Amino acid sequence: MSDRLEGPAPAAMTGLASRLAATRAQTLALALPLSEADCQVQSMPDASPVKWHLAHTTWFFETFVLERHEPDFQPHHAAFRVLFNSYYNGIGEQFARPQRGLVTRPSLAEVLDYRRAVDERMAALLERLPQAQAAVAALVELGVQHEQQHQELILTDVLHLLSCNPLAPVYAAQAPLPKAIDSPQAWVEVDGGLVHIGHEGGSAAGFAFDNETPRHAVYLRRYALARGLVTQGHWQAFMDEGGYGDPRWWLAAGWDWVRQQRIAAPLYWQRDGAGGWTQFTLRGRRAVVPAAPVVHLSFYEADAYARWHAAQHPGSAPTRLPTEAEWEHAVARCCGCEQAFGQAWQWSASSYAAYPGFRAWEGAVGEYNAKFMVDQHVLRGSSLATPDGHARVSYRNFFPAPARWQFTGLRLARDLE
Amino acid sequence: MSDRLEGPAPAAMTGLASRLAATRAQTLALALPLSEADCQVQSMPDASPVKWHLAHTTWFFETFVLERHEPDFQPHHAAFRVLFNSYYNGIGEQFARPQRGLVTRPSLAEVLDYRRAVDERMAALLERLPQAQAAVAALVELGVQHEQQHQELILTDVLHLLSCNPLAPVYAAQAPLPKAIDSPQAWVEVDGGLVHIGHEGGSAAGFAFDNETPRHAVYLRRYALARGLVTQGHWQAFMDEGGYGDPRWWLAAGWDWVRQQRIAAPLYWQRDGAGGWTQFTLRGRRAVVPAAPVVHLSFYEADAYARWHAAQHPGSAPTRLPTEAEWEHAVARCCGCEQAFGQAWQWSASSYAAYPGFRAWEGAVGEYNAKFMVDQHVLRGSSLATPDGHARVSYRNFFPAPARWQFTGLRLARDLE
Amino acid sequence: MSDRLEGPAPAAMTGLASRLAATRAQTLALALPLSEADCQVQSMPDASPVKWHLAHTTWFFETFVLERHEPDFQPHHAAFRVLFNSYYNGIGEQFARPQRGLVTRPSLAEVLDYRRAVDERMAALLERLPQAQAAVAALVELGVQHEQQHQELILTDVLHLLSCNPLAPVYAAQAPLPKAIDSPQAWVEVDGGLVHIGHEGGSAAGFAFDNETPRHAVYLRRYALARGLVTQGHWQAFMDEGGYGDPRWWLAAGWDWVRQQRIAAPLYWQRDGAGGWTQFTLRGRRAVVPAAPVVHLSFYEADAYARWHAAQHPGSAPTRLPTEAEWEHAVARCCGCEQAFGQAWQWSASSYAAYPGFRAWEGAVGEYNAKFMVDQHVLRGSSLATPDGHARVSYRNFFPAPARWQFTGLRLARDLE
Amino acid sequence: MSDRLEGPAPAAMTGLASRLAATRAQTLALALPLSEADCQVQSMPDASPVKWHLAHTTWFFETFVLERHEPDFQPHHAAFRVLFNSYYNGIGEQFARPQRGLVTRPSLAEVLDYRRAVDERMAALLERLPQAQAAVAALVELGVQHEQQHQELILTDVLHLLSCNPLAPVYAAQAPLPKAIDSPQAWVEVDGGLVHIGHEGGSAAGFAFDNETPRHAVYLRRYALARGLVTQGHWQAFMDEGGYGDPRWWLAAGWDWVRQQRIAAPLYWQRDGAGGWTQFTLRGRRAVVPAAPVVHLSFYEADAYARWHAAQHPGSAPTRLPTEAEWEHAVARCCGCEQAFGQAWQWSASSYAAYPGFRAWEGAVGEYNAKFMVDQHVLRGSSLATPDGHARVSYRNFFPAPARWQFTGLRLARDLE
Repeated sequence: MSDRLEGPAPAAMTGLASRLAATRAQTLALALPLSEADCQVQSMPDASPVKWHLAHTTWFFETFVLERHEPDFQPHHAAFRVLFNSYYNGIGEQFARPQRGLVTRPSLAEVLDYRRAVDERMAALLERLPQAQAAVAALVELGVQHEQQHQELILTDVLHLLSCNPLAPVYAAQAPLPKAIDSPQAWVEVDGGLVHIGHEGGSAAGFAFDNETPRHAVYLRRYALARGLVTQGHWQAFMDEGGYGDPRWWLAAGWDWVRQQRIAAPLYWQRDGAGGWTQFTLRGRRAVVPAAPVVHLSFYEADAYARWHAAQHPGSAPTRLPTEAEWEHAVARCCGCEQAFGQAWQWSASSYAAYPGFRAWEGAVGEYNAKFMVDQHVLRGSSLATPDGHARVSYRNFFPAPARWQFTGLRLARDLE
Repeated sequence: MSDRLEGPAPAAMTGLASRLAATRAQTLALALPLSEADCQVQSMPDASPVKWHLAHTTWFFETFVLERHEPDFQPHHAAFRVLFNSYYNGIGEQFARPQRGLVTRPSLAEVLDYRRAVDERMAALLERLPQAQAAVAALVELGVQHEQQHQELILTDVLHLLSCNPLAPVYAAQAPLPKAIDSPQAWVEVDGGLVHIGHEGGSAAGFAFDNETPRHAVYLRRYALARGLVTQGHWQAFMDEGGYGDPRWWLAAGWDWVRQQRIAAPLYWQRDGAGGWTQFTLRGRRAVVPAAPVVHLSFYEADAYARWHAAQHPGSAPTRLPTEAEWEHAVARCCGCEQAFGQAWQWSASSYAAYPGFRAWEGAVGEYNAKFMVDQHVLRGSSLATPDGHARVSYRNFFPAPARWQFTGLRLARDLE
Repeated sequence: MSDRLEGPAPAAMTGLASRLAATRAQTLALALPLSEADCQVQSMPDASPVKWHLAHTTWFFETFVLERHEPDFQPHHAAFRVLFNSYYNGIGEQFARPQRGLVTRPSLAEVLDYRRAVDERMAALLERLPQAQAAVAALVELGVQHEQQHQELILTDVLHLLSCNPLAPVYAAQAPLPKAIDSPQAWVEVDGGLVHIGHEGGSAAGFAFDNETPRHAVYLRRYALARGLVTQGHWQAFMDEGGYGDPRWWLAAGWDWVRQQRIAAPLYWQRDGAGGWTQFTLRGRRAVVPAAPVVHLSFYEADAYARWHAAQHPGSAPTRLPTEAEWEHAVARCCGCEQAFGQAWQWSASSYAAYPGFRAWEGAVGEYNAKFMVDQHVLRGSSLATPDGHARVSYRNFFPAPARWQFTGLRLARDLE
Repeated sequence: MSDRLEGPAPAAMTGLASRLAATRAQTLALALPLSEADCQVQSMPDASPVKWHLAHTTWFFETFVLERHEPDFQPHHAAFRVLFNSYYNGIGEQFARPQRGLVTRPSLAEVLDYRRAVDERMAALLERLPQAQAAVAALVELGVQHEQQHQELILTDVLHLLSCNPLAPVYAAQAPLPKAIDSPQAWVEVDGGLVHIGHEGGSAAGFAFDNETPRHAVYLRRYALARGLVTQGHWQAFMDEGGYGDPRWWLAAGWDWVRQQRIAAPLYWQRDGAGGWTQFTLRGRRAVVPAAPVVHLSFYEADAYARWHAAQHPGSAPTRLPTEAEWEHAVARCCGCEQAFGQAWQWSASSYAAYPGFRAWEGAVGEYNAKFMVDQHVLRGSSLATPDGHARVSYRNFFPAPARWQFTGLRLARDLE
């Protein structure tokens, strides 16, 4: 394991153990409203069963921490090394992703036992460890961050699963929803020039994924960012004016996608009987909320909206998606942008690529982010499903252009020159 | 509902209620070794979740009996009419078959409640009914037969599901297996001429599906049937001599299938480490049993074996699959054939088609069998998974040529002229 | 080569040479209205390029006659043995069928040279042969019959190709069309009983394919056949009454096909601007002709029509497709049926299967018919594209249920008991 | 039409007419070695028939120049507007791309007539035009550039077509081939800092596509570019050391692609019988040339090679693909890079995206480049198939990651910090 994957400062070790425990407990809390059947099913190849999330996050600690640092390590179950490996070729073979939902044994109870056993072994290990073992701490911190990512995926995957059910079940009565806000449609102007983005690195700066580093210079022209996110009300206007039916707004691949998939609204939107629209949420099917941010958009839709919006405002520089550098620079400067975090991941104009000077972590954890740097698109901010404390201004989320099952929306940008 | 769907004689009404109760209990018994997760998953589009089988067989009684004959009928749940309708357009819309596994709510417990509630209403209805109501009795009998068919499907669908699990779980320690027998490879000779096959019809003759009627004349040449089924040992010889790699034995569509699907053994067979073969069974993965009938063959494989076998015995008339008329006539005459029932469904040479003078049942139950009469192949006998008392000599099972997840084997035939 | 493939009587040898020449010339005549580009393209995997038909029919004579019987045989071109082998595994490897259209070299001119060269070698061989060599004569006869089948395919494949062109080109101004006739919608009644169908076999009886033999007994109930074919006018009535939108008329597989393929009319039919219908023909796009037989139907459509027709005439026995035995027995008896030949192949209710006692020809020609005996449906009669003298009462054409690019229609039948 | 699409200076008008004529003649010259059949076939959806290229380039002049600027414009053929529209929604409907090869009429001769007719009308128009009509000149220039792009596609599409033919035909005995060169494997070091890339714009600077503008500042770190391209010999070393079988070198999507498509060599490479390799070229199948640049690589392969190469040289900064800014800045500075043009398009690390401040051309020609800016990868330089004078240092070619039928190779880069 690389010492380049930097952990918390030594003094933080006790704090880490309790953060680990809290994170692990929070994952279980998310599964609480679900039956064994709910936890079993994989509703599409992109999603995973909740039971798999519960097991895989445990596998992560067992494989990357216990196996390397526990004296006399014995695997909890010999078959789990393959069964719950997501995509780490450096660890070995993986069970086929689209078939995760077929594995009904181990049962949910056995997976919960697995969690408990690994939790206990982790707690014992952390207690025993000298304060100085930064390499272990770094891996534990990574495991916590990893588990937080899967917490968000649990919510989005469950939402997708329940959306396939004609009975439109409620996940939880108090589950998070897109929040209506009173955000003026103002523009925040930002100076350009040679700016720096990316994470500083080093344990003092707090955790970051390898893909956020190194901090580096980028030259930006003067630009403006919208103060708030595009709302469900805005989206209805786009739809009402035929946005899904006019090729002028769409990238060629987006237009093919719209026609082949017969897309005519954001994912989970359906007409109600009375000319309005509903959306399926973690609280079941509900009316669209005009003042809340629109979510469940593909990159294609976000991009098309910006181009349509530009055509409605012929006087000014055309609206577009911001680059990730524009987004990060503005938000880092506390520019006046609202809803940067906690509502909707915001599609950027940037393809997901290595920063100048980027080096992936060494060893198998180097597969965490680096090998996905092709044909994916960067999203910035965080969503209503992101765990507290997980996101930061340099955070780079990424998904393929057609992905819609995450809480994905957009913020507009435009040139100022 | 048609009076052409004939029920038991009036005197049998009490017997029917208890047969109904016993059949319903037996279905539950099959689900007993399974977890909620096991009952939830659909491992391929051809299979259904066990929970769906439990619900659909209940839906059958609710829709075809209670809804028509219960005074002040109220549906158990308004959405179930669509959700658990398999393929009856005459009843209305159906939830998409390949997505049955996505419906995690209603829960297994709610489906079991549904079963109990309908069972009670059925019991009450049957008690109330005058002995004379043959039409109701006929529908109840049909529901019992229908449920027995789904009992077999529960076993084959569960076997498929568990076979996808790398842990190779056991369904039940006492589950049925292909049985080794000591059956001489003798031929049973049968006279031909104008013979009659098919079910007599009429309540005195006992239950039959519409597709078994009418009884009709068929002209047969003299022929011989093998006394026993083709065994796993025979099949190993076929494999050892390159049977899967030689186009001479295969129908063109079968040869395409073998190459595109890379078929090299019956479904569920795998090499063990030592040059032998194992097969996945309801009791987990076990060694192949040379003296037991081979199962999990497609029509293509059964047909290819017969042609390969013919080439090994150039002196006699070439072996082939029997027609369904040959099979029925011989077995009806107690010809000396063994393993006709209870081991493996036997692929016939006959495409599934209407008998001369066939009329489907009237109304929605007319969709039960008739609309599948194209590009399916008749299997005769019954298998180790068929409930006791379900099969009979005129029974016509049918599956598409590539289907392998049923307990399907073969018996050879040849001409005698 | 088997002596079971029986040829013409010795005296017919001279006649055979001239029939061969005439057949070969006729194939060229069919290609005459076509450009090199027209001859090159394969418009779907089921169709073949005309250039391929020209080459493959030549390959047939080279491979099955010259290679076996010409002294000092040398192949015309070493690569052609594989390149123009359609599906004979007994001969060896085959170039992939769906890629036939990609082979632009050899050019059309080179293929025509190939034809000329093989024609000359065949003529020389036939001249040299003693009258007694029935085995050669049988193969030559088979080659002639084979080439006639490809003549029909040339027309149907060209029609499909041209139908893909938005300019709707005309193949030939005098090309055959469905013919309007004045055929009363009467029924021809036929006695049943034990009848015989199939070809007598033996050279005295004239040529037959192996699949037409042996002649054998079949028991038929009394039945009626429609005197004429179902017409385009009848088909419009079926469409006008919503035939394509009502699952009651359709086999389950047919209903899936209708919805997945969005089928709403016979192949090549399109609405004209004025509420009527046009069809694409070998003479370009033309108005539908109500009194002419409907063509380009799938088995599913033919079967659905019969069921719909039955529901319009509730008083009588339901209409259905005739079995091939019913068709052959009635037509052989000159029963009053019209349009048996020369208009449209008539879908039967029979799956394509071996006759009792059937033996495929020996050797590679045994692959001609036998290996396709699964999931195909027998068509009887002949069509407007069938060469004169090719069809006969025992002829069995066969296609999969969804095939529509042949000239396929239907004749109704019904029971008389 | 936008005046933002800038044309040549007025004085260049006569020159433009003769460049137009020369370009049009050159296209015909490329088709000269081909038969009508060769020109007709579309060997995969990504490729187009040569006849279509001949027609579409003509359509471009007819639609964008004649239709707008010719008095009393009449279309050459009413159907061509749709038939030969590639992807311009602003012009209207388009004939389905994957079916271009099915359109055998108009014939090749008719398409050549179409070319001649439009050429004459263009010549007349240009003669008549006042020198000042820069907008027309700009469109003519665009048409010339467009036709040059299709000249390259003609060669790559023909190469793909001929590669599908087991006879491995030669396109032309003197057709271009990858050239062996004696290029030392040296590194050219380049200073970073704030540099400018992109085309100046303005007619004085010569033609550029909209996607090359505006010229803009980019901040670069110090880096090195390889002096030459990766060769076929290098590639053999990569293959010999198991490069295609080791997931460490591959992006996740690339690894999926390698396994699903069973990729084990560059496109068109095949083993010869003696342990060596051949490649299919425009001169037929030939031995691999170790000293010549490797071509027909996907982005995935180019990227994997760089990562493998890095692992072979653990001492220095890891090799990688250059960004397009690195490439352009170095080549513009005449840095010592060889084979920048005329051998192989060089995959860059950059996704194809809008430059800061980018505006697509107005009107339908705005669809030329802009709508493809998603999930495509920039290639720089030019290839052996690129027409003389077509490429320039700011030129941005782009293809999806898996594309291999272009002449695509790579040049390595690495950091210097």
